[in-house]
Amino acid sequence: MTKAMNGAESLVRTLVAGDVTVSFTNPGTSEMHFVAALDRVDGMRCVLCLHETVTTGASDGYWRMLNKPASTLLHLGPGLANSLANLHNLKRARSGVVNIVGEHATYHRQYDAPLTSDIEGIAGTMSNWVKTSISAKDVAADGAEAVSVAMQAPGQIATLILPADTAWTEGAGPAKVAAPAAPAKVAEDAVEAAAKAIEAGGGSALIVLGTWAVRAKPMEHASKIAAKTGAKFRAEGSNGRVERGAGRVAIERIPYPVDVALAATKGVTHLILVGAKAPVAFFAYPNKPSLLYPPEAEVVTLAEPSEDAEDALARLADRLGASQETPLLNAPGRPDLIRGDLSHEAIAAVVGHLLPENAIVTDESVTTGRNFFRDTHGAPPHDWLSLTGGAIGEGLPLAVGAAVACPDRKVIALQADGSGMYSLQALWTMARERLDVTVCIWANRTYAILKGELANVGAENPGRKAHDMLSLGDPNLDWVKLAGGMGVEATRVDTAEGFADAFAAANKRKGPFLIEVLN
Amino acid sequence: MTKAMNGAESLVRTLVAGDVTVSFTNPGTSEMHFVAALDRVDGMRCVLCLHETVTTGASDGYWRMLNKPASTLLHLGPGLANSLANLHNLKRARSGVVNIVGEHATYHRQYDAPLTSDIEGIAGTMSNWVKTSISAKDVAADGAEAVSVAMQAPGQIATLILPADTAWTEGAGPAKVAAPAAPAKVAEDAVEAAAKAIEAGGGSALIVLGTWAVRAKPMEHASKIAAKTGAKFRAEGSNGRVERGAGRVAIERIPYPVDVALAATKGVTHLILVGAKAPVAFFAYPNKPSLLYPPEAEVVTLAEPSEDAEDALARLADRLGASQETPLLNAPGRPDLIRGDLSHEAIAAVVGHLLPENAIVTDESVTTGRNFFRDTHGAPPHDWLSLTGGAIGEGLPLAVGAAVACPDRKVIALQADGSGMYSLQALWTMARERLDVTVCIWANRTYAILKGELANVGAENPGRKAHDMLSLGDPNLDWVKLAGGMGVEATRVDTAEGFADAFAAANKRKGPFLIEVLN
Repeated sequence: MTKAMNGAESLVRTLVAGDVTVSFTNPGTSEMHFVAALDRVDGMRCVLCLHETVTTGASDGYWRMLNKPASTLLHLGPGLANSLANLHNLKRARSGVVNIVGEHATYHRQYDAPLTSDIEGIAGTMSNWVKTSISAKDVAADGAEAVSVAMQAPGQIATLILPADTAWTEGAGPAKVAAPAAPAKVAEDAVEAAAKAIEAGGGSALIVLGTWAVRAKPMEHASKIAAKTGAKFRAEGSNGRVERGAGRVAIERIPYPVDVALAATKGVTHLILVGAKAPVAFFAYPNKPSLLYPPEAEVVTLAEPSEDAEDALARLADRLGASQETPLLNAPGRPDLIRGDLSHEAIAAVVGHLLPENAIVTDESVTTGRNFFRDTHGAPPHDWLSLTGGAIGEGLPLAVGAAVACPDRKVIALQADGSGMYSLQALWTMARERLDVTVCIWANRTYAILKGELANVGAENPGRKAHDMLSLGDPNLDWVKLAGGMGVEATRVDTAEGFADAFAAANKRKGPFLIEVLN
Repeated sequence: MTKAMNGAESLVRTLVAGDVTVSFTNPGTSEMHFVAALDRVDGMRCVLCLHETVTTGASDGYWRMLNKPASTLLHLGPGLANSLANLHNLKRARSGVVNIVGEHATYHRQYDAPLTSDIEGIAGTMSNWVKTSISAKDVAADGAEAVSVAMQAPGQIATLILPADTAWTEGAGPAKVAAPAAPAKVAEDAVEAAAKAIEAGGGSALIVLGTWAVRAKPMEHASKIAAKTGAKFRAEGSNGRVERGAGRVAIERIPYPVDVALAATKGVTHLILVGAKAPVAFFAYPNKPSLLYPPEAEVVTLAEPSEDAEDALARLADRLGASQETPLLNAPGRPDLIRGDLSHEAIAAVVGHLLPENAIVTDESVTTGRNFFRDTHGAPPHDWLSLTGGAIGEGLPLAVGAAVACPDRKVIALQADGSGMYSLQALWTMARERLDVTVCIWANRTYAILKGELANVGAENPGRKAHDMLSLGDPNLDWVKLAGGMGVEATRVDTAEGFADAFAAANKRKGPFLIEVLN
């Protein structure tokens, strides 16, 4: 016989039994019974975040490393709204999450109390599944469904809205979460079509890899296919998680600048998509195309993002007679340090020279980071997590989530200053949870990318007012103080050798440390 | 003949001609032509905010002081999403704003580039009016309509979505904004019904004032009516802007705690609403009612929030023969300072003793501020701006907007620490714009209100995990460093006399200063 418990406790026990064991939370009054249940039930780690944008960004980092959902805990519509931008990035990373959003008691909503809003409407803009529990007896079953949905390949956003009275009223006890299905294998037709495209295209065929296809093993199959057929392969422009480094396949991404991307795909006649979308420009620009490949190219999908990319590429390699080829793997090797000014070259050399073994890199470097891939191909094996949806402010929260997911690995957060300011509250969570993160802030004190974009869109001779809208100076941000204000030790460097020393020292410590890199 | 100009410039010139002269901005690539146009056109002050939650909170503060809209400038769906929580507060303050949201070029949207999202869907959850411009020729007319909508009484949220190509393509030149209509006068029937309710209720009638009814003049009419009839009057629980202080009517609000509110409305037989809603509990609690007044009370609406409350109350006073009564105005008077510990009493005494003449107070004090009204009734005349929608994190942005609106007045931001962390980026804008704001942070290092709420909902014996989810300690936030990191001078005080000295000194300066008040 099930022991009596309220809806909140039924839900928490359902989540824990369903292997959802971390909750990135910012609760309010309407979630107090859920908080009390989290307190009573063992097995759920609660990580307090001081703004909801941290909760969803961290959930994304957690999923990318473990391929399973964390839960968030959000306070009504505004709390959910605060989480949306990183939910957008999470969606574009094709990650999954279970959002728990508190709501007024069912009978209270009719009175339009001050915090009332259209929670389902807000959730619907960024969720794959939205449900409002209608009674305490339903909460556990709804929660089990949410976990199942979140686990659907490649990962889904499930948002469960929990009216306060469904939390505090007697519930039905925990519900069982269905075991997640393995990602589907692709049809033989898809393998055949991809093979024909590669045979027809030869050196003019381009395989675009995304989602699970940018892990070590599937990339080896891609490399074998390239060795056999002359086809090229690249990763999507932004990727949830690329397995990289020495002993792994060297992969380049579709470049961000339109002209550079078009040069990279010039002459492509066949595009083969593996867990990826056909490349499009991040933004439109006057007199430049949207598609980043020749429009006459034939586009063939080998695997959808939800499908088993490794199996598909292995079968494609087989079909093309490439299975016995030797994949081209990175030899170990690191760039030399460069002394003096903190140029983008010198910064990349430090990162490449000193990247710790088995690191997890979260990369929201924007303009400063354009050389990082080049300088880390031969570094010890590591994972590279990028900003996938272009909503700035995910880097630091991603680092929180990755560090919670993988406590035995060093997380390196490479972070531009302007985007870092969007979610600096994540630093406090790093301190609270003693997360093992080295944060490097690229302090160029400007939205540098926008200065280039102002020129790109053809806006000529910007004046003082435009300059001020793109500058983070006057006053300069002081990241050492900002970090200190949230309990994270920090230092500032203004030479390449200073950065190298600070980066090496930070990586030897356990726990969070921030380096403000003036560049 | 209109000089050739693109859509962006047509829109900026339309806004400026329509008296929208401040833009709280955080632009991105898709807004670069708009930025360039802002740069070229005189008459628009551009205020950069380092997170979009500051843009809408500041727009709210600006509206509350000037009763006219600012514009925001937001980067696609995620930028808009980041602004939603304070848009919720703005809506609940019944303020107006013109949001300009950049979007991908019309022809680019089909490709689902990484930053693509359902902008209209996101906007719709918190806007009164949403429109996506379909061509450069429409942009100016759409902008003119947006301004007109924003100005509709009592204030509306107009969100104009601007595809990049409608900004950069040749436009139709500026469009004319229709002059806003004055707020409607209430019908004579409404005056009569309110009069009858007050005559029937006598001392058991309660007039609830909101929106424009809590300005000095309408409250004098309410006071005269009370003097004549014995009816009571109160302000709504939270108010966009109350005119208060010596020589003005003393008004109390509907209390926040349910039991206290019910005690205050016990025995009420007639409720007369003037620009206000009938009082409801902020949250539901087990075994407590939602309505904060006797359910059998007769509810009569004298004026909707959109209607002319001052005229309505003047006519009601006439009808009741109260016009010649003497309103009860606060005598000048300030509390004595209390020495020693920074109790809530001592803090309130400092605020009351030293509040500068003609100050604008933005109040997101949460638990620390419960005595502030009592101790400032006799302070020099001032405006009091509260958190209206319960979405925490509006206090500092509100102060930005009020200071931009009224550069000759001192702004006093009374700010709880937990909610202050939601939008601390506003401090940088205060420094950048040299805004004349004294920020007081109530550093109790906890979500103090939630500790009470955990008890209120009947959750018993919270343990370590619940405690950790409601505590801002471990590590403690250091607001002096946080402020310094954003270019705002700051100090920390831990005694009442220390706070009094720091508060007096800060109020003598020009420009932003932050006081961390350990309590």
